[in-house]
Amino acid sequence: MKNTFGQSVAITIYGESHGEAVGVVLDGLAPGIPVDRDYIDERLTLRRPSGRISTARQEQDEYRIVSGVFEGRTTGTPLCIVIPNTQTRSKDYSATRWLARPGHADYTANCKYHGYEDYRGGGHFSGRITAGIVAAGAIALTALHQKGILTATHVLRCGGVADRNFGDLQADMQALQNDPFPVLDAAAKDAMRQKIEAAAEAGDSMGGVLETVVTGVPVGVGEPFFDTVEGLMAHALFGIPAIKGVQFGDGFDMADAMGSAFNDPFRMENGNVTTSTNHNGGINGGITNGMPILFRCMVKPTPSIYKEQQTVDFRTHENADLQIHGRHDPAIIHRAAVVVDSMAALVLCDVLAGRFGTDWFIQ
Amino acid sequence: MKNTFGQSVAITIYGESHGEAVGVVLDGLAPGIPVDRDYIDERLTLRRPSGRISTARQEQDEYRIVSGVFEGRTTGTPLCIVIPNTQTRSKDYSATRWLARPGHADYTANCKYHGYEDYRGGGHFSGRITAGIVAAGAIALTALHQKGILTATHVLRCGGVADRNFGDLQADMQALQNDPFPVLDAAAKDAMRQKIEAAAEAGDSMGGVLETVVTGVPVGVGEPFFDTVEGLMAHALFGIPAIKGVQFGDGFDMADAMGSAFNDPFRMENGNVTTSTNHNGGINGGITNGMPILFRCMVKPTPSIYKEQQTVDFRTHENADLQIHGRHDPAIIHRAAVVVDSMAALVLCDVLAGRFGTDWFIQ
Amino acid sequence: MKNTFGQSVAITIYGESHGEAVGVVLDGLAPGIPVDRDYIDERLTLRRPSGRISTARQEQDEYRIVSGVFEGRTTGTPLCIVIPNTQTRSKDYSATRWLARPGHADYTANCKYHGYEDYRGGGHFSGRITAGIVAAGAIALTALHQKGILTATHVLRCGGVADRNFGDLQADMQALQNDPFPVLDAAAKDAMRQKIEAAAEAGDSMGGVLETVVTGVPVGVGEPFFDTVEGLMAHALFGIPAIKGVQFGDGFDMADAMGSAFNDPFRMENGNVTTSTNHNGGINGGITNGMPILFRCMVKPTPSIYKEQQTVDFRTHENADLQIHGRHDPAIIHRAAVVVDSMAALVLCDVLAGRFGTDWFIQ
Amino acid sequence: MKNTFGQSVAITIYGESHGEAVGVVLDGLAPGIPVDRDYIDERLTLRRPSGRISTARQEQDEYRIVSGVFEGRTTGTPLCIVIPNTQTRSKDYSATRWLARPGHADYTANCKYHGYEDYRGGGHFSGRITAGIVAAGAIALTALHQKGILTATHVLRCGGVADRNFGDLQADMQALQNDPFPVLDAAAKDAMRQKIEAAAEAGDSMGGVLETVVTGVPVGVGEPFFDTVEGLMAHALFGIPAIKGVQFGDGFDMADAMGSAFNDPFRMENGNVTTSTNHNGGINGGITNGMPILFRCMVKPTPSIYKEQQTVDFRTHENADLQIHGRHDPAIIHRAAVVVDSMAALVLCDVLAGRFGTDWFIQ
Repeated sequence: MKNTFGQSVAITIYGESHGEAVGVVLDGLAPGIPVDRDYIDERLTLRRPSGRISTARQEQDEYRIVSGVFEGRTTGTPLCIVIPNTQTRSKDYSATRWLARPGHADYTANCKYHGYEDYRGGGHFSGRITAGIVAAGAIALTALHQKGILTATHVLRCGGVADRNFGDLQADMQALQNDPFPVLDAAAKDAMRQKIEAAAEAGDSMGGVLETVVTGVPVGVGEPFFDTVEGLMAHALFGIPAIKGVQFGDGFDMADAMGSAFNDPFRMENGNVTTSTNHNGGINGGITNGMPILFRCMVKPTPSIYKEQQTVDFRTHENADLQIHGRHDPAIIHRAAVVVDSMAALVLCDVLAGRFGTDWFIQ
Repeated sequence: MKNTFGQSVAITIYGESHGEAVGVVLDGLAPGIPVDRDYIDERLTLRRPSGRISTARQEQDEYRIVSGVFEGRTTGTPLCIVIPNTQTRSKDYSATRWLARPGHADYTANCKYHGYEDYRGGGHFSGRITAGIVAAGAIALTALHQKGILTATHVLRCGGVADRNFGDLQADMQALQNDPFPVLDAAAKDAMRQKIEAAAEAGDSMGGVLETVVTGVPVGVGEPFFDTVEGLMAHALFGIPAIKGVQFGDGFDMADAMGSAFNDPFRMENGNVTTSTNHNGGINGGITNGMPILFRCMVKPTPSIYKEQQTVDFRTHENADLQIHGRHDPAIIHRAAVVVDSMAALVLCDVLAGRFGTDWFIQ
Repeated sequence: MKNTFGQSVAITIYGESHGEAVGVVLDGLAPGIPVDRDYIDERLTLRRPSGRISTARQEQDEYRIVSGVFEGRTTGTPLCIVIPNTQTRSKDYSATRWLARPGHADYTANCKYHGYEDYRGGGHFSGRITAGIVAAGAIALTALHQKGILTATHVLRCGGVADRNFGDLQADMQALQNDPFPVLDAAAKDAMRQKIEAAAEAGDSMGGVLETVVTGVPVGVGEPFFDTVEGLMAHALFGIPAIKGVQFGDGFDMADAMGSAFNDPFRMENGNVTTSTNHNGGINGGITNGMPILFRCMVKPTPSIYKEQQTVDFRTHENADLQIHGRHDPAIIHRAAVVVDSMAALVLCDVLAGRFGTDWFIQ
Repeated sequence: MKNTFGQSVAITIYGESHGEAVGVVLDGLAPGIPVDRDYIDERLTLRRPSGRISTARQEQDEYRIVSGVFEGRTTGTPLCIVIPNTQTRSKDYSATRWLARPGHADYTANCKYHGYEDYRGGGHFSGRITAGIVAAGAIALTALHQKGILTATHVLRCGGVADRNFGDLQADMQALQNDPFPVLDAAAKDAMRQKIEAAAEAGDSMGGVLETVVTGVPVGVGEPFFDTVEGLMAHALFGIPAIKGVQFGDGFDMADAMGSAFNDPFRMENGNVTTSTNHNGGINGGITNGMPILFRCMVKPTPSIYKEQQTVDFRTHENADLQIHGRHDPAIIHRAAVVVDSMAALVLCDVLAGRFGTDWFIQ
């Protein structure tokens, strides 16, 4: 399906970094969900670059919803969002047209699309494409919020600095909501920013680890063997440019643990089944167990760096040196937080609608 | 799609641990691929428990291929494999029918299937189901081998012991082929076994990390935005019971690295484009770049342990203590290696057939 | 997806006419549906050849359900049915191995599968494959019956003889339930049989038109633009060998009508919205309107005839004459009725589960 | 998947009749296909209403391609087309907001979308949505033309008047290319127009039968059991509003024929395998046999008529009379011809890319 993901609730992604627009078609979401442009704007703002640690390209993301909304609510038919590109500076790219930028998709796209790809700014492989996911995700989140399902993502690790783990979930999740650099611990936040600024000054870039929590998902959701919550979520998350690792619960961090430590004991609490630990991240056998869903994404350092790099010219097939110009982010991990959050929301709408029917989200 | 995965080449999984049979339908693979029963047996043997570090349940996996093969080769129409269960001892489970085994899918399956699930031995959530994946994977691997594509998986980490990284790929991959406990370094191998045996004696269990390499995949394969090689592979891998994390290339291990360290410089080598490092694991922008594909799976410790555990009775909704009996593995990570390898082969057949057409595999 | 159909409830078909077995995997159907072997047998009997107007090959269809059923009910996990072939006489086919039987898939399969196909008795293209659909369909029908949804199919036309249209639906549908030659009008039934017998004596074959009715489907089901009830149903129905046309409501029969005649006026009746005619076959805009769903399938005459036919040898690429031997049906339209009915049931389970969630069928 | 169709080459449809825009995302088509705006315009013109036999609403279809095209050719990444609605007159609809128009989707959509649907002009169920299919279809046709695959559709029957069958295919197909009322026989064409005009004067409407031919499709394409060329084509065609029947080859018209008449004898002709008749419409066993693909669609009479009709008010649940105003077509069958043609082209691109790989279309 390539650029479409989801069965009951699906999104279709389109656009290139320096083309006319990027956008998304959101299909299958229940009718009657309020489409709140202020909230969509708020979410798009979190993705938008700002300050010294981001690219100087400033897109206002003045999107248009051209279908699927009537009298302020979703109709239940496809909702198409068009986000025009306005701040393109394509000449930044023509000089290096045939030089594969290391870590980018230039070379692989050239092999796959035989030179017909729009190479400017990474074309369809640009992080710019994620604006559509954030816009559609905001509507998905509205649907989830109505059902008591909440999400939050923080930068768990960046430049060797670790944020603290989630503590009081309600307070922590609230604190992260509108933070353009979402870190729980204030000192860690400052230290991370400094690391990124130092990297920027050195013409280099940083990556890190994001951690996401989702609360309120009912027990019994997920469709093993293959359409586990983990599998569907990971499939979608790996579409986000720069994500190279996904783990649920403690994942790799407890690779050395024994079963007696990793198993989450079940306990009754206020009449509900719960687990006293959550190493499995709220999922057993690919199905939600009612505990918070927890997962982490490794975001690789932005491949666009200003240091000179070795590469090849894929037209002449000769070694070459590459000096990137243009406007680039020394880190996108903080901007990626809202993208991960949005993608998670879309995947959850899909599995919930598949499990409980399309009308489940209707209030 | 639940129990079916793949678009051009797809598998459908069925069966329960203590039902009549487990198995798989493999659909869409090219006609004319040799079906070598010796090779399938060899692969199934790698998955089969053996020795002190495995369950005492000994299934002979005397499978039948009931369709899709004619005169020793695939017909191109669906190939159904039936693997009877013969060594079932269901009474081991009746006593703990309503006690959720921590770390298992008992509770979540009960919520999802409303008590109609076959609870014996984990039912459809048992690792036993992966026998079908190994059998189908063997045929997929035959198709890949004919095209020069090879796979290998080793236990990178177990019980705090680390194997060495891949060195001379050709030799290392060869060495791993028929090893039921695939570790590159002999001392690490011994140490891992000892860790598992110690865990077994303590009534506990171990997990770890598997690392897989695939060589020979052509450049330009993968279908972003969503059907990246990473996304498809992770989706399928997370279906394997016990896998809680998937990363490509260095993934989480280089979360603190800068772009200048993570970017893989392109270089010409014998007339071919290559990269001088492979931190991205052979994939840029979700598309293969011609370098070896490298990924790691975190396998959680086997949840079946003999130590007493806290749990709930999900019929009475009261706290309870659980003492598991029956036959269980203190570790399945070494047996999981062949499953991961097989799943990777099936996913690759799918993306390659989608990219180059169904006839690409015909010799 | 080739041999898998359905999203929420899916079937995967496998098998060849003269291989070891044919069968089906049914996935996604709700847990707790009773699996009534007597009813499955009854349905398989309707598909089985009998009497002078059918092939002499007598398969007993002693199927095994090897997964997905526990204590007599569906578990909600994949249900695999294996139906062994026992009465194969492959030598009937070796003499004409390379002669394309007109109207059959021999030539096209040979082109597609490059000679690796199992050619005996049509291989995977045999009507024998539909046994699995009938078995799975019986379980789907049980689920539908519990929700008050009923189906019936009659031979509307055969050999120039027309059956009467449906009248008193309840009585008519009841009358058709266990009729191996389902025709409403007794005289038409006799006349059709005579036509088929005459064709058989002439070494020729007959086809015809089947008409199916489904009652009790709730209003508001179907997923336009593409996943209309008509589109999904037709997609599945065209998989049944020999079906060359599908129409809903009056379809082609009212191609010359004006809008004022074709539009079905809405009327209130006992507090319910209904239509006073049903030219649209219970579907408006691809969505059910609560009226009976009505559709017709054109079944082409069985291509296996005993008359000498012109053909080509697709190995030597020369013209040839073909004299078919073996055991063949002079008509399969009456046996196809239960197949159409079963396929319709499976498609409806899929769209209903997608619309109302997987638990909708649980009593 | 609702509004997305296709696996290798897919389209996603969006838009409402009186919303901001309608459009389509075309995904998976090969890179390098010329995007010829003149040709797209030409095709859109064929769909556009004109003259006395069409609605007075005149949309200029000044579409924008906002992604997926670079330097005049497809990039291989999703191509999004936005076609603004400019001539909307929504007040025509507010008076009859709650009156279900017979034959339309008003009532069923209201049940499905719970009143949140955009009811104006049929909303997402309007024929207006097909503009996107024609635009995307024009690009698909360009890809097919490069490979020697041609399509043509004529009005075979309308108002009791029959066109002649195809004769000299090359000449007939050429003659139909730019005809806004595509009929082969000039006298039949005049008679059909007169029938439509008479219907218009009577405040009524006409439907009919379209016949489509496709030449040049290679032998061996189609993916039985389910993804037959017939099944995929019918699935997509039934999405087109007003289509209520689809048949391949002679379909229902030869329901009374014997096998000896319906079977198409194979013959060698100039070194190629061919059939001396084509009752099966170029498809055997769901797979192309190299002969022209032939199919027919029944297009029901336009449900919007000016005669008073009986209906219900689905808010008050009372019987009511309905007098439709607004701008409507007395027939859309001639405008539907280009839509059917376009949809067929899209489906063929999908099956061909699935069979031969995505690069097959690259010149």
